[in-house]
Amino acid sequence: MAYQKRNATLKDIAEKTGFSINTVSRALRDMDDISEATKKKIRKASKELGHVENSIAQSLRLGYTNTIAVIIGDVSNPFFAIQMKEVETYARRAGYNTFLINTNEDEQQEEIAIKSALNQMVAGIIICPTQKSDKNILFLKKSGIPFVLQGRRFSDLDTDYVVVNDELGGYLATHHLIEKHHHNILCLHGPLFISSARERLAGYERAMREAGFPIDPALEVEVPALGEGFSEAFLSVPFDSYSGIFAFSDMVAWEAWAALKEHGLDVPKDKALIGFDNIESRLVLPFNMTSVSSFKGKMAMLSVDILLKRIRHDKTSSYKLVIDPAVKEGDTV
Amino acid sequence: MAYQKRNATLKDIAEKTGFSINTVSRALRDMDDISEATKKKIRKASKELGHVENSIAQSLRLGYTNTIAVIIGDVSNPFFAIQMKEVETYARRAGYNTFLINTNEDEQQEEIAIKSALNQMVAGIIICPTQKSDKNILFLKKSGIPFVLQGRRFSDLDTDYVVVNDELGGYLATHHLIEKHHHNILCLHGPLFISSARERLAGYERAMREAGFPIDPALEVEVPALGEGFSEAFLSVPFDSYSGIFAFSDMVAWEAWAALKEHGLDVPKDKALIGFDNIESRLVLPFNMTSVSSFKGKMAMLSVDILLKRIRHDKTSSYKLVIDPAVKEGDTV
Repeated sequence: MAYQKRNATLKDIAEKTGFSINTVSRALRDMDDISEATKKKIRKASKELGHVENSIAQSLRLGYTNTIAVIIGDVSNPFFAIQMKEVETYARRAGYNTFLINTNEDEQQEEIAIKSALNQMVAGIIICPTQKSDKNILFLKKSGIPFVLQGRRFSDLDTDYVVVNDELGGYLATHHLIEKHHHNILCLHGPLFISSARERLAGYERAMREAGFPIDPALEVEVPALGEGFSEAFLSVPFDSYSGIFAFSDMVAWEAWAALKEHGLDVPKDKALIGFDNIESRLVLPFNMTSVSSFKGKMAMLSVDILLKRIRHDKTSSYKLVIDPAVKEGDTV
Repeated sequence: MAYQKRNATLKDIAEKTGFSINTVSRALRDMDDISEATKKKIRKASKELGHVENSIAQSLRLGYTNTIAVIIGDVSNPFFAIQMKEVETYARRAGYNTFLINTNEDEQQEEIAIKSALNQMVAGIIICPTQKSDKNILFLKKSGIPFVLQGRRFSDLDTDYVVVNDELGGYLATHHLIEKHHHNILCLHGPLFISSARERLAGYERAMREAGFPIDPALEVEVPALGEGFSEAFLSVPFDSYSGIFAFSDMVAWEAWAALKEHGLDVPKDKALIGFDNIESRLVLPFNMTSVSSFKGKMAMLSVDILLKRIRHDKTSSYKLVIDPAVKEGDTV
C-alpha cells in the first residue's frame, strides 16, 4: 500500500511470470477461467513485487470509488463540524473516505461541489442543501448517484433525508419560554427558503397560538444563515418589545447574547434565551445555555447508514427519517 | 461531467470514428504523432458522445489525483474546524478536492489515515501529527508524497511545516498575566510529546524566570489534548495556589472557566484567564476571552501554498514557516 510501490504493475507481474497482462489481471480478480495453479503463481509474484491494486485502479473497474462527499454550508460552524466528525468516523468504519466541500450557503458553489464530487466518482453524497432553489438537488437525482439530505428537506421532492422534527423543536422551545411566563417572544429565524428555518418558525407560531398569544410580525425577525449582518437585524427590534428570545441556532443565540451584553443587558435576568442544536453537548463552554437538542450525532449516523444502503443498491422507495428533538434545560431561561 | 454520461468511453469514440482506441486516446491527449485532421474528427465525436475524461481516469495516467488529504485530531474542535474550512477553500480555488480524516490524536488511526490517503492517490497531505512518535511521519517521508506539517513540528526531522511561534506565544501570554500583577500562574499545558505544548510551556517558564518568579512544578499541569479527564487534572490544584491561568488552548480555557464557575469562582474577579488560538476571531461567543491569536487562517493558507509548490515539484530544500502570535486582549485578565 506504500506510495513508492505503485510502480509494481500488472505488466511487471506478467513479465516476471511469463503470463499475459490479461491473464494476470483475471487471476488477481479470481476469475473462473484461470486455473488454480496459475492463480497461485501469479498471486505469489504479485506479493513478491509488492503489487497492490490501488483504490483508483479498482474504481475505474467498478465505476465508483470508496469515497463519499459531504457537502455542507461551513465546517467552521460547530453544528456542521460536529456532524462532519461523526460522518467521517462512521464512513471510515465502513471503509469509505470522506471528501468535505463547503458551499458557504451559495447555490453556485453547491453546484460546483456536486459536480466535483461526481467527477471524483464518489460512491455517494451527504448534503445539507442551500435550498435557494431545488435545481441542484434535481440534478443530483437525475445523475443517479446515491445521496441523502441531512438537516433540511424539500416538501415537494422525493428524496431520502434525515432531519430533526424542526416544527416540534420550535414548538418545544417556545412552549418552554411560555411556561416560564414569557408572553412577548422574539423569534430569530433563518432565511425562510431553508426548510428548518420555516418549520421552526411554524412551531413557534403554533405554541404562541395554543397559548392564546397574538403573533406579532415585528417579533419574527430573519437573520442570515452564516452570521454576517446579524446585529443589524437583531438590534432593529426594540429591547422592551420582548422578554424572551427563541434563536434559530445556538450560534445565533450566542450572537444575540453578545449583542445584549454590549448593550448592558443580562441573560437571563433581562432577557430569557433559548437556542437550537445544543452545541454544548460536544463543546464545554463557560455557561449553560438552554437549547433544543437536535441529536446531531444520531442524525449523522443515520445519514451514513442510509447512504451505505443505497450504495449497496437498497431499493426501498425512500427513507424519510425525522428525529424528535428535546429541550435541554440550562441557565438562560 | 454528469454522472450518467460516464458510459461514453474511448471505445465508443473508436467505434463511432473507426479509429483504434489507442489513436483516440492519443488524439484526445493532443499527442504529436496524430494528424490534426484525425484529432479534429475524434474531438468532434468525443463531444457528440458526451465523453468527459473523468478525474479518476486522468489520475491513473498521471499517477495521482487532484485531491489532497487533511489529517487532523478532531474536526469538531473549533481550532481544527476553522483550519479545515480555510484549507478546503484555498485548495478548491487551486482545483483540488479535500479529504478529511480525523486521528483522534491516536497514532494507529494516524497510520491508517496516511495509508488511506496514499491508497486514494492524493497529490499531497496536510497533517497535524499526533507526535506520540515520529514513525508515521518517517513513513510519509519515505513514501515520497508531498506533505506539510501544520501546527506541530519535529525538531529532529527535516520536513516542511507551518507553525505559530509557540514559545513566543507562551511567553506573551504569561508576560501579559505578569503585567497585570499575577505572580502565581497556573500553566495548563497539553501532553509534552506535542511540540506546541512543549514550546508554549517553555515560553511560560521564560516569562516567569525573566520576571524573577520561581517556577513551581505544582503549577505546571498537563491536561489531555482532547478534553476527556480534564477536570480531574485541573481540580487537583488548590484554587488558592494561583491567581491567573495560562491555558494551552481556548478549549482548555473554556473548560477551566466552566469548572471554576461550578465551584463558585468568577473570571476575572477571582481568577484571571488567558487562552490560546483566539477562536472568537471566527466564532461570536457571549464573552470576550483574552487569548493568544495564532493566525489560523494564515497558517492554513501557507500550508496549502507550500503543498501546491511541492506537488508542482518545487525543489526548495525545506519550508519551515513560523508565524509570530500576538495577545488579543479581552475581559478575562
